[in-house]
Amino acid sequence: MPLHRIYHPLSAFSTSDKQKISERITALYTDVGLPAFYVVVLFTPVENESFFVSGKPTDKFVRVVVQHLARQIPSEEGKKQFSEKYENVLAPFVKEKGYDWEVHVEEVPPDMWRENGLIPPIKFPEIEKEWARQNKPIPY
Amino acid sequence: MPLHRIYHPLSAFSTSDKQKISERITALYTDVGLPAFYVVVLFTPVENESFFVSGKPTDKFVRVVVQHLARQIPSEEGKKQFSEKYENVLAPFVKEKGYDWEVHVEEVPPDMWRENGLIPPIKFPEIEKEWARQNKPIPY
Amino acid sequence: MPLHRIYHPLSAFSTSDKQKISERITALYTDVGLPAFYVVVLFTPVENESFFVSGKPTDKFVRVVVQHLARQIPSEEGKKQFSEKYENVLAPFVKEKGYDWEVHVEEVPPDMWRENGLIPPIKFPEIEKEWARQNKPIPY
Repeated sequence: MPLHRIYHPLSAFSTSDKQKISERITALYTDVGLPAFYVVVLFTPVENESFFVSGKPTDKFVRVVVQHLARQIPSEEGKKQFSEKYENVLAPFVKEKGYDWEVHVEEVPPDMWRENGLIPPIKFPEIEKEWARQNKPIPY
Repeated sequence: MPLHRIYHPLSAFSTSDKQKISERITALYTDVGLPAFYVVVLFTPVENESFFVSGKPTDKFVRVVVQHLARQIPSEEGKKQFSEKYENVLAPFVKEKGYDWEVHVEEVPPDMWRENGLIPPIKFPEIEKEWARQNKPIPY
Repeated sequence: MPLHRIYHPLSAFSTSDKQKISERITALYTDVGLPAFYVVVLFTPVENESFFVSGKPTDKFVRVVVQHLARQIPSEEGKKQFSEKYENVLAPFVKEKGYDWEVHVEEVPPDMWRENGLIPPIKFPEIEKEWARQNKPIPY
């Protein structure tokens, strides 16, 4: 569900950093009961000469694009809280290492979303819990 | 129009697989009369250590992001049917090879969409047919 | 804010081309008073065998995906004008070099958008001007 595309300079993250960032991102969702396997994090290294901010090549910027499908956060306050949590996740690996960064989260309607070909059980909390428990999509 | 971004492990698809997948995706649209050249499919190989599901690196997952511009599918039933057709397209190359996978389709308003600088003739079926026939954008 | 993802054949753009394209894109936004650092341009080279148009591999196509956050263009006419300006930016590097191309611009609600962890001052023109003047996000 949540898809996190992280565009970063080649040397920004070690293998261990990427591991930790993705674990911390995943916890944001499992903490509210979503299946861990919903969370996909893709790191995309971008060459200095292909990454421009202010019209200048950069190796000090991280750009994160997040897409949500399983949940639309209804309130302005809820959205704000999510962004704050997300910033806390990234901070040790981005802010505290001297990078500049930008994040945005999109909410995509889930009508044409499938996991292993199955319609995710957004409307069936009990089934969703079972998917979370087994951490895989199960026909229902 | 439809943009298909397919994020996959390095060894998931052969050149021939990619050829067949893109042909089958394209047919989904030409079957309903859209120009073939509207269909863009981008395969993005992602290193094991940059591709995380459930907070763990994976080489067994395929993530597909689709964007529609030329048509918004109006009904819930129509959207469901599209997703089913799409799953059939992917199945031989993903499901039947033991990968897990996730797909979502976004519908993007076409106001700021251009093909070779031209406004696609969404509102002009006869011109769209001509674009389809010649398989290229033609000034009108 | 505006995120420009440019998918292109390996040899489409020189380092100098990329520099010029990103400068010209940036000027579209600074001309209307937005901070230059809002503008992120990512060039993604795509191998011939992973880039399909009409179900055929291509090395003559450029696909651009733009996302706007700081401003939603309210009128149809305004959107049209933006697209025209954008086409002019790309033309010398794409059209005039014999490539086919496709562009679309998405407008993303800015609720969960952050720059260096800060809420961009969309509703505070004076602060936005200061961000533009200093070309960096400043706590307010």
